[in-house]
Amino acid sequence: MCTSGHGSVDIANTGGVAGTSAAPGPKADPKLIDDLVTANHILFGEGVVDAFGHVSVRHDKRPDRFLLARNMAPVQVTAEDIVEFDLDGAPVDANGRAVYLERFIHGEIYRARPDVMAVVHSHSMAVLPFGLVPTFPFRAVTHMGSFIGTCAPVFEIRDVVGDDNDLLITNGKLGKALAECLGDSVVVLMRGHGSTAVGTSLKEAVFRAVYTEQNARVLSEAARLGGPITGLSEAETRTATRVIGGQATRAWDMWRMRAEGKV
Amino acid sequence: MCTSGHGSVDIANTGGVAGTSAAPGPKADPKLIDDLVTANHILFGEGVVDAFGHVSVRHDKRPDRFLLARNMAPVQVTAEDIVEFDLDGAPVDANGRAVYLERFIHGEIYRARPDVMAVVHSHSMAVLPFGLVPTFPFRAVTHMGSFIGTCAPVFEIRDVVGDDNDLLITNGKLGKALAECLGDSVVVLMRGHGSTAVGTSLKEAVFRAVYTEQNARVLSEAARLGGPITGLSEAETRTATRVIGGQATRAWDMWRMRAEGKV
Amino acid sequence: MCTSGHGSVDIANTGGVAGTSAAPGPKADPKLIDDLVTANHILFGEGVVDAFGHVSVRHDKRPDRFLLARNMAPVQVTAEDIVEFDLDGAPVDANGRAVYLERFIHGEIYRARPDVMAVVHSHSMAVLPFGLVPTFPFRAVTHMGSFIGTCAPVFEIRDVVGDDNDLLITNGKLGKALAECLGDSVVVLMRGHGSTAVGTSLKEAVFRAVYTEQNARVLSEAARLGGPITGLSEAETRTATRVIGGQATRAWDMWRMRAEGKV
Amino acid sequence: MCTSGHGSVDIANTGGVAGTSAAPGPKADPKLIDDLVTANHILFGEGVVDAFGHVSVRHDKRPDRFLLARNMAPVQVTAEDIVEFDLDGAPVDANGRAVYLERFIHGEIYRARPDVMAVVHSHSMAVLPFGLVPTFPFRAVTHMGSFIGTCAPVFEIRDVVGDDNDLLITNGKLGKALAECLGDSVVVLMRGHGSTAVGTSLKEAVFRAVYTEQNARVLSEAARLGGPITGLSEAETRTATRVIGGQATRAWDMWRMRAEGKV
Repeated sequence: MCTSGHGSVDIANTGGVAGTSAAPGPKADPKLIDDLVTANHILFGEGVVDAFGHVSVRHDKRPDRFLLARNMAPVQVTAEDIVEFDLDGAPVDANGRAVYLERFIHGEIYRARPDVMAVVHSHSMAVLPFGLVPTFPFRAVTHMGSFIGTCAPVFEIRDVVGDDNDLLITNGKLGKALAECLGDSVVVLMRGHGSTAVGTSLKEAVFRAVYTEQNARVLSEAARLGGPITGLSEAETRTATRVIGGQATRAWDMWRMRAEGKV
Repeated sequence: MCTSGHGSVDIANTGGVAGTSAAPGPKADPKLIDDLVTANHILFGEGVVDAFGHVSVRHDKRPDRFLLARNMAPVQVTAEDIVEFDLDGAPVDANGRAVYLERFIHGEIYRARPDVMAVVHSHSMAVLPFGLVPTFPFRAVTHMGSFIGTCAPVFEIRDVVGDDNDLLITNGKLGKALAECLGDSVVVLMRGHGSTAVGTSLKEAVFRAVYTEQNARVLSEAARLGGPITGLSEAETRTATRVIGGQATRAWDMWRMRAEGKV
Repeated sequence: MCTSGHGSVDIANTGGVAGTSAAPGPKADPKLIDDLVTANHILFGEGVVDAFGHVSVRHDKRPDRFLLARNMAPVQVTAEDIVEFDLDGAPVDANGRAVYLERFIHGEIYRARPDVMAVVHSHSMAVLPFGLVPTFPFRAVTHMGSFIGTCAPVFEIRDVVGDDNDLLITNGKLGKALAECLGDSVVVLMRGHGSTAVGTSLKEAVFRAVYTEQNARVLSEAARLGGPITGLSEAETRTATRVIGGQATRAWDMWRMRAEGKV
Repeated sequence: MCTSGHGSVDIANTGGVAGTSAAPGPKADPKLIDDLVTANHILFGEGVVDAFGHVSVRHDKRPDRFLLARNMAPVQVTAEDIVEFDLDGAPVDANGRAVYLERFIHGEIYRARPDVMAVVHSHSMAVLPFGLVPTFPFRAVTHMGSFIGTCAPVFEIRDVVGDDNDLLITNGKLGKALAECLGDSVVVLMRGHGSTAVGTSLKEAVFRAVYTEQNARVLSEAARLGGPITGLSEAETRTATRVIGGQATRAWDMWRMRAEGKV
């Protein structure tokens, strides 16, 4: 059984059947749930998630709650699959359904960062290599990836629980450590595992997850050209992020069409 | 409100709602507008643009005007979304619709280059790395990319407005600087942002945008083989461009079929 | 005619028409055969096999038998195409149909490894380069690829039959040598040819074949960043494999949907 | 008008309208023409050709003739678009339709190599870089690409017509020089342009064109791992080619299904 709290979680590795351990409250806006379903499909369509990875949104009526699908592949998520959680990762209405092992990523980031309204965790392919090579910092090299900043933090799980670990964020202690590593950044890389991006809205978080991947592809290709790489300056990352952020809806609308097979 | 002129533009970063500030004139050929819609769809289908990037064509009856979609994802553009602009970037018939922040790319290039009839601006992925590494020139290495020449210019926005910028071409001053950097070339790279290609016809500009990307992929792969790379000679770039240019329609026809889901 | 035994196989290079040379026995569970058909389609859909490559499963009632499609492209396999073989590679019910030249890969691994219930052999593209460069070991760098371990074995066919060979595992002697090279590992690379992955179930073997390819893509990209690469530690490979293994069904279900064109 | 002979060809760069300059003869087998149409579609489906590139087959009743589509994108080719040519590149039945500028590639290879029954010319992306870096030989590193041999020839057009050229094989003189460079090989790279592969049957030529591209992708990835690369030995290229060649039909059947949208 899945229980809330730090260090006390012991879930079967099939995802764990979650009992309800948090009290019900006001229901989230159905539109928010619909958007969360769309976010799941977009992230699959744009290659950020495959059968794994997940996206959450903070509850619109209770900031100490968040919404996240039950344990399943994002592309298959429907509104009925969305579960409400408290910040300890305890489900409100799982009704015995298996939940994601790593919901602690979401809860602890929402706790540490009141400005964050949505979180995307993925293993997107182009970002992963940058978590493996400590001497090569991951940074913004395109205006679309400006939110990454001049040096994205890398989370090393060994620093928290030592060498014998499964690389997953399966309890509150690890979630807290990850949130601390994220700090005020938008993206945190997770060595040997993936990355997590946050946004001040669901659309922004999705936008950032997609363009984190694209920035990684560009930086990776630039790395082979053998000369110094001009990244965005500190000022450019700030200024471009402010301007580009307003374009997230345009991308969202197109990605939704693609996810729905309309383009 | 969007106004014409250099340096006076101050548009909200959501794209800006554009008031009509240029006088109406003769209507453009509907066939030209249809082709511009097709160009938008082809550039999406061939991976040159995603939700961002744009393509314009010079007005067939007024060389001091150009046609460009309103602020939206290229794949969604229809004939009703095409707006007429003057060379200062002032829309003629936007009727309050949001327009692209970066329409100044188009206006200023049309002003500087009477031979140019169409302009494509994109963030196409394989080209971007070459804007980041000053020591590695981008040049033609395939006959299909011969129009690139032996060394494509790279636009560094910091040289114009300093370090605190958003990398975008959001006013006439920046547009003029970009057009100056382009000079007599066909393609100009924009550091940390993307690239812009021009043509003497809409089909040619689209053709060049697609093959700029493919030339970049080939050059990028060649760069890892560890030996000197044989690019096209000055003579080869000129001669091949003259011959290959005549093939643009064959590509256009196939790409249109693909964009329409027929192949 | 295809006969059992080591070294005695002499099959035409079109695949060889196989006579029945092993006695019939109890029929395999039709559900297992259906899953094997699905496995063929998934491996094609996920890019692990193209027209070549094959997947087998151990017979559920006779551990000295296994099931494998007749000689054909995996995506075209139906239940009627599944043939039963003994561990020597002799078909039970081929009825004259051509069988895979390399069925000895499967038979000899099932013989050497009682824990193995399924085998995937492929030429998947990202793994191949690691078989060619002896100085660069292939190892797990992502939690999803943890089963690869800290150094995957590489099979060099020249060590068994000398320089004049066709790189294929076309008889029992070569199959035994390959199984020996695999040892207790999950994945064995085959120089200039491909790789083979095993699992304790069909779903696990498919899961591992897909993530071997993805791990290879990540490692290949990391290799160009120019610094030391942090792979999974010995302890991490063991611990992560135990936890991640339980997630194979989630991936299988999504991949099946994709193979069926539903996502 | 298109005329036969070396050096006398002067075709408009739109492809050239071809007058009939060779006498009609016995009609080719309709099945061969159907296969040639399929070959065009397969090569597009497998990414070997885009709007450019072409495939021909030797006439089954007149070895001094070959069949090739008129000037068009391969994916759009139907049986009605197939034109018969003599070895000088003069069309028999073009009836004024534009023909490929580079049909001399085909004619001169058929003349020089009686064993060749089909020719594929393409700009396939992964092969191109190897034509640009003389210090890095292109060679077989996979059994599926064994026919490439231990060092593929590279055609440098400057050696024939000097520096001011368009990189295309637009007359018999250049076709002869290319055929001479090909020699007894299966694949010849063309610097800055593409490559050409031959086969003893149409299916074999298509098979080789596809796996030339895949071998190039593998070799390119191996090149970044920083160590010596084990290619196929001379004996391995010969032996594997003999065995693998028999598998071309299995690939053809699957690729045809994919080209027809059935998988």
